[in-house]
Amino acid sequence: MCRWLAYSGSPLLIEDVLYKPAHSLIAQSLHSTLGAETTNGDGFGIGWYGAADKPGVFHSVEPAWNDRNLRELAAHIESPLLFAHIRASSGSAVQQTNCHPFRHGRWLWMHNGVIRQFPEVRRDLVLAVDPSLYPHIEGSTDSEVFFFLALTLGLEDDPPGAVAGAVGLIEEVGRRHGVEHPIQMTVATTDGQSVWAFRYSSEHDSRTLFYSTDVPTLRSLHPELEVLARVSDETRLIVSEPLRDLIGAWNEVPESSYGVVQTGQDELHPFTPRAPSRSTAVPA
Amino acid sequence: MCRWLAYSGSPLLIEDVLYKPAHSLIAQSLHSTLGAETTNGDGFGIGWYGAADKPGVFHSVEPAWNDRNLRELAAHIESPLLFAHIRASSGSAVQQTNCHPFRHGRWLWMHNGVIRQFPEVRRDLVLAVDPSLYPHIEGSTDSEVFFFLALTLGLEDDPPGAVAGAVGLIEEVGRRHGVEHPIQMTVATTDGQSVWAFRYSSEHDSRTLFYSTDVPTLRSLHPELEVLARVSDETRLIVSEPLRDLIGAWNEVPESSYGVVQTGQDELHPFTPRAPSRSTAVPA
Amino acid sequence: MCRWLAYSGSPLLIEDVLYKPAHSLIAQSLHSTLGAETTNGDGFGIGWYGAADKPGVFHSVEPAWNDRNLRELAAHIESPLLFAHIRASSGSAVQQTNCHPFRHGRWLWMHNGVIRQFPEVRRDLVLAVDPSLYPHIEGSTDSEVFFFLALTLGLEDDPPGAVAGAVGLIEEVGRRHGVEHPIQMTVATTDGQSVWAFRYSSEHDSRTLFYSTDVPTLRSLHPELEVLARVSDETRLIVSEPLRDLIGAWNEVPESSYGVVQTGQDELHPFTPRAPSRSTAVPA
Amino acid sequence: MCRWLAYSGSPLLIEDVLYKPAHSLIAQSLHSTLGAETTNGDGFGIGWYGAADKPGVFHSVEPAWNDRNLRELAAHIESPLLFAHIRASSGSAVQQTNCHPFRHGRWLWMHNGVIRQFPEVRRDLVLAVDPSLYPHIEGSTDSEVFFFLALTLGLEDDPPGAVAGAVGLIEEVGRRHGVEHPIQMTVATTDGQSVWAFRYSSEHDSRTLFYSTDVPTLRSLHPELEVLARVSDETRLIVSEPLRDLIGAWNEVPESSYGVVQTGQDELHPFTPRAPSRSTAVPA
Repeated sequence: MCRWLAYSGSPLLIEDVLYKPAHSLIAQSLHSTLGAETTNGDGFGIGWYGAADKPGVFHSVEPAWNDRNLRELAAHIESPLLFAHIRASSGSAVQQTNCHPFRHGRWLWMHNGVIRQFPEVRRDLVLAVDPSLYPHIEGSTDSEVFFFLALTLGLEDDPPGAVAGAVGLIEEVGRRHGVEHPIQMTVATTDGQSVWAFRYSSEHDSRTLFYSTDVPTLRSLHPELEVLARVSDETRLIVSEPLRDLIGAWNEVPESSYGVVQTGQDELHPFTPRAPSRSTAVPA
Repeated sequence: MCRWLAYSGSPLLIEDVLYKPAHSLIAQSLHSTLGAETTNGDGFGIGWYGAADKPGVFHSVEPAWNDRNLRELAAHIESPLLFAHIRASSGSAVQQTNCHPFRHGRWLWMHNGVIRQFPEVRRDLVLAVDPSLYPHIEGSTDSEVFFFLALTLGLEDDPPGAVAGAVGLIEEVGRRHGVEHPIQMTVATTDGQSVWAFRYSSEHDSRTLFYSTDVPTLRSLHPELEVLARVSDETRLIVSEPLRDLIGAWNEVPESSYGVVQTGQDELHPFTPRAPSRSTAVPA
Repeated sequence: MCRWLAYSGSPLLIEDVLYKPAHSLIAQSLHSTLGAETTNGDGFGIGWYGAADKPGVFHSVEPAWNDRNLRELAAHIESPLLFAHIRASSGSAVQQTNCHPFRHGRWLWMHNGVIRQFPEVRRDLVLAVDPSLYPHIEGSTDSEVFFFLALTLGLEDDPPGAVAGAVGLIEEVGRRHGVEHPIQMTVATTDGQSVWAFRYSSEHDSRTLFYSTDVPTLRSLHPELEVLARVSDETRLIVSEPLRDLIGAWNEVPESSYGVVQTGQDELHPFTPRAPSRSTAVPA
Repeated sequence: MCRWLAYSGSPLLIEDVLYKPAHSLIAQSLHSTLGAETTNGDGFGIGWYGAADKPGVFHSVEPAWNDRNLRELAAHIESPLLFAHIRASSGSAVQQTNCHPFRHGRWLWMHNGVIRQFPEVRRDLVLAVDPSLYPHIEGSTDSEVFFFLALTLGLEDDPPGAVAGAVGLIEEVGRRHGVEHPIQMTVATTDGQSVWAFRYSSEHDSRTLFYSTDVPTLRSLHPELEVLARVSDETRLIVSEPLRDLIGAWNEVPESSYGVVQTGQDELHPFTPRAPSRSTAVPA
């Protein structure tokens, strides 16, 4: 039960995205309005792309609202693509290896939601992770196992297909264990170029997810917002909860959908899990 | 800005006091009802008396609600006198040396509230601390300086007099710096035998403070509460916020008052700050 | 890669065991003499038995030498059975869930050594853990998986047999992956009554392990040592490295052996791994 | 009691300076060769200049050798001017506010050494800090008070003069308290343009300090070192302990001296403390 934000567009100081909006993610760490939990104080993380080949990640077990190192980094690091996540643990330990975003190679992944009855289904899910990927699982969260299932099922080649496959597998394993609604999720993932964001839950009553209105429209609606002059037309934010109360700024991602933020036209599509075929299913 | 609890009575496992009540202090760390801040996640501390001469203290910068070590200690340490405090920082760093309760010799001290415009008055207040005590100040909070002022003014011999003197000094220094209402406070202090608890603010609009009804009365009102059978008639709790919604259990400490929990009859008195005499005042 | 200590005997303050000896475990955290690593600063843990049914554990990611909370607890908690461990990570994350001693029910477990090429053999070993125990694995160390293999193979009924089985399994899986010497270990485990301590390595060149001379002999050798007057004849220490330079005090556990500290006569036996039978082996 | 490094020159990734040399500062955190303490595991810090007006700082209480966040930042942040410090506490608490480098405005400061009998002289020294600067002291170290004394005495206008004045004051106050050799130090400070480095101790037996040979000479001595091709002729390192065993690379700063690394010719001068005049001295 967490909150997250994905920023893609003109390079900005991280603090412009993370601290400056009125209802910023940092403010949400103390008082979220739409979250399942109002306090998200069980650690946080950011991931960003810069000069290096791999994205950088910074994970901390402290509440984000009071972390001085985060404030320092945010004031000194500029990035065209930022993931940020604040955590409200649903039981697993508060430790850096459980902080989102998770990274594998050039990819980042973050999740708000839960794989239900995870202690019971965890072993079957972990067994379905490719043995060559298995040693890279470092923490104990459902979200990281979900990431490795998506990697196993081809995330790097076909993100929507791999996530559909992972969700289908999680639903199949969950139902085999008697879980009525095995998954609740909003997920964002990126390879450093495009961002894919998913909203789905087995009960079709998913956590909120919003994307920002295109920048030219925002500029005409809100000419007073200085930051809009500094960012390109293609700049986009995806958030679990709006960052300010700004008329016309936020659009809800529909239930059971996913969006792609990319060079050129962004996209929005329906999302349907894909049931595992015989070959990817774990043995009963 | 914080919440605290003082327990004095029959030896109980710390978890009986800290975790088991419905609206426990640990629950208040996430969601306080009466606090100036709803979240108290900037560290916590406990102090307890046991076999050793000095009380033990355990301080952590993590939010209390998720701290596994606190849960372990609470399940294994029994004490007849426990102080517990959860912190919502009003600006000073989140570090162990800023966690309450503070200790000096056999004494413990904890504070909910603020010395207003502390950065401006801090130097004058620190100068008023006895030079032999000065090196023992370890952190950077207003609350710890307040403790050392009380120690300087005789806390170990006359707690109510020393606190009245410290508050008088803080008000005098604050007003000299143009602060309208220099202090807001509920304070508890103990020598391991008696507990003194104070409620006061310069504006006479102080944070809440409650003491529990005497145990024989509580037993007759609530015969179903098993824990009441295990504690002596003299057992008492003082809290910044009631721990359960229990009819007849909680009594508000009146504005500008202090109470003493001790062997024999407990006491409740008015509290008036004492203006510093020439000799204890800091040079203008 | 780590250092540890097991104390069994008359109830003592933890600090008497942990801090007071000249070359104490806390001193070893900064400067170990016999360890594979001289600094053991990657977290620590203690486990102790007291009033409660289960042992208490306290885990920290800070170096032990400077941890104020450990010093406080050690000065206030008395126990007749203490495990303490200081860690030098061989690669896995420094986090509380990776700190020894590990606990399951009434049992504690700690390990100095390594399962070699753990990232490669980990999946096969984890698969051999009983599915009902699997959800209780919280961290990412080889040592915790080793504990859960021993639990799977009957630790609670026959500790030496279960450890022999777990080591045999680890050696079989390791060799299947081409590891020449799959395990290096000293291990201690306890149910709160007896302590079992093992010294073994696949290469038969194991880390050091010592047990203290019986107390009556020690008293006659060292009448000046005040602490010996306070402990029972049956009190015993087992350590990875002697705590003081005391003539006649320390006896090396022989290569490939295990000892039992228990009510009545303690025991010392040879230790031989037991190769897995068909039914417990993991599928190739 | 600590180790530090100052880098000034062509922008490099922090990891090129901090991790890549054979006997890097990170390696020294575990095993220093020339330090008063062999382990420097009581926290660390870095300060660097980049796009923003003020330098960034990152402080952590964990040992540097195993800190994943430091490794991430080092792989992603480039800077032309870096300070890095690893700490071995001489008694004050391990907390972020005690980690070097300290910052005030555009200035950074770090110190290896000690103000002797600091608990006894601290009050007098703190009283000599300008009251307008006093509220900015956040931690409890001698090194930070030293920094604020230098700021009080004009660091921003005349660094060598201000440091000479601060050392003179520390010696005068120390001797008044009966301390034979009041200070032991190597210090580095910078405004983001030039770096000043000082080596001094009251007993004229100071901790080691080295500066790197000029880059053109180094290139001719060690053409195989690839990093030398990437840095400008003016690039310079100042270190408490050489980073590699490289013939001709390191030059000891003489006893009681200071150097200036700046645009144009660097300088090396004798250092003599300046006794306080009547007006800056604290009242006896």
